[in-house]
Amino acid sequence: MTGPAGGAVEDDFRDAAVVGLGLIGGSVARDLLARGVRVRAFDPALVGARMARAHPLAGVRVVPALEELAGAELVVLATPVSATPALLAALRPHLAAARLVVDVGSTKRSVVRAAGALGVGERFVGCHPLAGDHRSGWEASREGLFRGARVYLCATPGTARGAVARAAGLWRSLGAHPVEMDAAEHDRLLAWTSHLPQSAATALAVALAGAGIPPAALGPGGRDATRLAGSSPELWTAVAADNADFLAEALNALEARLAELRACLAAGDVEATARFFGAGRAWFEQGPA
Amino acid sequence: MTGPAGGAVEDDFRDAAVVGLGLIGGSVARDLLARGVRVRAFDPALVGARMARAHPLAGVRVVPALEELAGAELVVLATPVSATPALLAALRPHLAAARLVVDVGSTKRSVVRAAGALGVGERFVGCHPLAGDHRSGWEASREGLFRGARVYLCATPGTARGAVARAAGLWRSLGAHPVEMDAAEHDRLLAWTSHLPQSAATALAVALAGAGIPPAALGPGGRDATRLAGSSPELWTAVAADNADFLAEALNALEARLAELRACLAAGDVEATARFFGAGRAWFEQGPA
Repeated sequence: MTGPAGGAVEDDFRDAAVVGLGLIGGSVARDLLARGVRVRAFDPALVGARMARAHPLAGVRVVPALEELAGAELVVLATPVSATPALLAALRPHLAAARLVVDVGSTKRSVVRAAGALGVGERFVGCHPLAGDHRSGWEASREGLFRGARVYLCATPGTARGAVARAAGLWRSLGAHPVEMDAAEHDRLLAWTSHLPQSAATALAVALAGAGIPPAALGPGGRDATRLAGSSPELWTAVAADNADFLAEALNALEARLAELRACLAAGDVEATARFFGAGRAWFEQGPA
Repeated sequence: MTGPAGGAVEDDFRDAAVVGLGLIGGSVARDLLARGVRVRAFDPALVGARMARAHPLAGVRVVPALEELAGAELVVLATPVSATPALLAALRPHLAAARLVVDVGSTKRSVVRAAGALGVGERFVGCHPLAGDHRSGWEASREGLFRGARVYLCATPGTARGAVARAAGLWRSLGAHPVEMDAAEHDRLLAWTSHLPQSAATALAVALAGAGIPPAALGPGGRDATRLAGSSPELWTAVAADNADFLAEALNALEARLAELRACLAAGDVEATARFFGAGRAWFEQGPA
């Protein structure tokens, strides 16, 4: 992991388009508005609905069709990762003015591949801000969400260095810390650091549901361990499916560790049980993030 | 689950003995001192060491031997559950003045059985305050730890109703909410609500350690899901060993759910994956504790 090349960053975007006004897209929109950038947005969930009028959209101009995003200098794709490649293809004819196109999804191989194949690789940088939580939707979005957050930047094979620097500058101006990384390396790392904890929390919730145990029966520790189960199913289904190979590896490792503990208990092997809990604590004590 | 019988509670203990000055025992000691109760304590880790003098023990008188706890009207056993039955046997000759003997461990079948077998069942109530967290030791103890916490009370077959009422009154005076429950019912429930989330967090930590992923690589969600891995290995080894049968059942269910997700991913079955994440969220949305 290395930081992007330094130097002056051209990030004076005046006109941005955001597709998807969920937690991440909505927060990007709010941050850009706060910096004086005009923001147009398209969100399938808002189109044709009264929602666009009913919601206080903080100054974002919601347009009813993708083509009305034409002319934007910065384009931010903030949809579930399963939708992003097709969306990018549909947007392709309207990107003439775009100096930078980014997404903000949790997996990077598929979108980086799609951008290259669609011929926008030179201006495209896959971005992944580590700023999600178990809440989702426009209601959860807020100004300043990215302050202090790490943001992974994954270039396509053809991304211009200027585009990477521009993306880094954009995130820095939002208070975040950009870190360049290869898309496959990113997806493997995130399978362990993010997708596995999410899957473990969901599996724990589903197991508890099966045993008839409601959330109210848990103490503070159990609530911590299951908090991620409240995350958006739509978003995580797309992430898990898109990163199935790396996530399956990580799931397999977790299952093996649980089976190991179960074997210690069945054998009444208290020393091995102690080594197990000791190993968990030793990892934890390496220190906080 | 029903609350203990109401009525006047005799809880005017003047002289208490606490065995084990960790998070729970230390916090009980601090709360009792704050209510004007004299507190003597025995803690194997403090005996013969300079620690008793080095630590600011908040007014607790640390004694060098169990027999010096004789005369206490209230006796609180706050050691790892594996140590408590033997400790109760060693204390047995010195309990003449005790009107109430409680423990505060996370499993209840073994200690309730031991109290009955040792002939102190009439004055014994197994207690389990849901107030632990991933910190441990005297340093983590604090006044007011039990305020608002649920405390399970598990009687022996021979516990006098007066002793149950006295235990309930004691916890109420510390701000907690006592709930009576059969010891086996308690241990099964806690296997799911507490011991399984703890084991899952530890297994996740051990799996991450195996993949070379440090805690610093995790985002806020991953930190939530692994926080319990920092819990005391000594304490949890004892709990897991003592509740091995119920915990093994719960572990098995969690492994099955993880394998289920892995199978969905391997088959590329996006609908089944969506049902999985949807079921986790549906459980979560039943509401907070």
